[in-house]
Amino acid sequence: MNKLYEGKAKILYTTDDPQIFLAHFKDDATAFNAQKRGQIQGKGEINCTISSALFRWLESKGILTHYIDQSTSNEMRVKSVKILPLEVVVRNIAAGSLCRQTGLPEGKKLPFPLVEFYLKNDELQDPLLTRDRILILEIVTPDQLEELKNLALKVNELLQEFFAGCDITLVDFKLEFGLDSYNRILLADEISPDTCRLWDNRENDPQAKVMDKDRFRRDLGQIEEAYQKVQQRVLSQIQDLQF
Amino acid sequence: MNKLYEGKAKILYTTDDPQIFLAHFKDDATAFNAQKRGQIQGKGEINCTISSALFRWLESKGILTHYIDQSTSNEMRVKSVKILPLEVVVRNIAAGSLCRQTGLPEGKKLPFPLVEFYLKNDELQDPLLTRDRILILEIVTPDQLEELKNLALKVNELLQEFFAGCDITLVDFKLEFGLDSYNRILLADEISPDTCRLWDNRENDPQAKVMDKDRFRRDLGQIEEAYQKVQQRVLSQIQDLQF
Repeated sequence: MNKLYEGKAKILYTTDDPQIFLAHFKDDATAFNAQKRGQIQGKGEINCTISSALFRWLESKGILTHYIDQSTSNEMRVKSVKILPLEVVVRNIAAGSLCRQTGLPEGKKLPFPLVEFYLKNDELQDPLLTRDRILILEIVTPDQLEELKNLALKVNELLQEFFAGCDITLVDFKLEFGLDSYNRILLADEISPDTCRLWDNRENDPQAKVMDKDRFRRDLGQIEEAYQKVQQRVLSQIQDLQF
Repeated sequence: MNKLYEGKAKILYTTDDPQIFLAHFKDDATAFNAQKRGQIQGKGEINCTISSALFRWLESKGILTHYIDQSTSNEMRVKSVKILPLEVVVRNIAAGSLCRQTGLPEGKKLPFPLVEFYLKNDELQDPLLTRDRILILEIVTPDQLEELKNLALKVNELLQEFFAGCDITLVDFKLEFGLDSYNRILLADEISPDTCRLWDNRENDPQAKVMDKDRFRRDLGQIEEAYQKVQQRVLSQIQDLQF
């Protein structure tokens, strides 16, 4: 097993089978382009478990993902896709950089799900890309861009429905996609409280509602507890769906 | 005459006629969102004269502008439009923030003219806007956005042709538009070495080529001389076109 790539939250290993990588989920947490660093106890296992459950569920709804299985508590076997250097963000409610950059008030419901593309490039600080910038940088073709947008919207519909069943509002989330050897676009990376903004419908206080990495970003405390709560509700919802 | 608005490079006054504003062009120069400040001797007169010539020429080619006449050396009478809070940038060659943000190499010819929209908001540092962000912020309607893009492309075609006749390469430029009382979109603001990147085809040295505000931004010296040279070539081209 060779280390292929170490990111901020995961390490990717090659395996004996060239079709299969192993994703190891770390407890390390970073924010603001890694200017803030820390650890969230148990995060690796929680995020691996939540992501596995959501990938399996999305697969059952017809979304192609890189997921194969959860091989250990914090490791996932995935198909060896080539990751596209795009962060695909879907926003249902204004929050985070969208508010900082445009002045939109945090918490404003958007008139339609906003799909945004950011260049996955730490040095350039993951800049927002327009459609034309994506095409000029030749990151994907116009057809692939259209497909990515449609996939992101479909995943948003499915995840909104799933999280609603958990009494959780899906504010926004980040997806990454990869190309398999047939050049098919597969949903990759992870879906977890690290990559989603999740608000607890059972709480009224704006800070108590936060169940995601914003607790770490904004030093709200009880980070582990929030991540655990998401895991419990996701697993219980999976059971309720008899899935 | 009442001061309606003072910007970084111009002061706008109301007049006795509610249909007419007076734009006073200042010698003040700012860059990097006004973090860098200075003066360029004679800039007000030069930019007023160049803008007047270009507006007259664009009008003759069917572009509606706010221009009425140049009433003094550094003052222009304009139609009293309501300025849209968008900076519309057209890029033919990669330079400036496009390169800083995306890593594209400076000087790379773009495969198509890139029309970009930035929010005119000093506090937010004029952020880049995607199409969807413009619509969510309700700055313009989808139809108006389409019209702005088409107008910007048409102005680019015309200005590229005009500057080519001056032995000048139009690298990129910023336009602003306003709505008149009939809700028609009129080209407004100014077109000058403050708002265009202009490279001298008669020079080979990359620094000597620069005929625009980049001389001020990058402390290249001979700023006044460069602005004067642009004015001379524009006025001579206007004469050549017997216009």
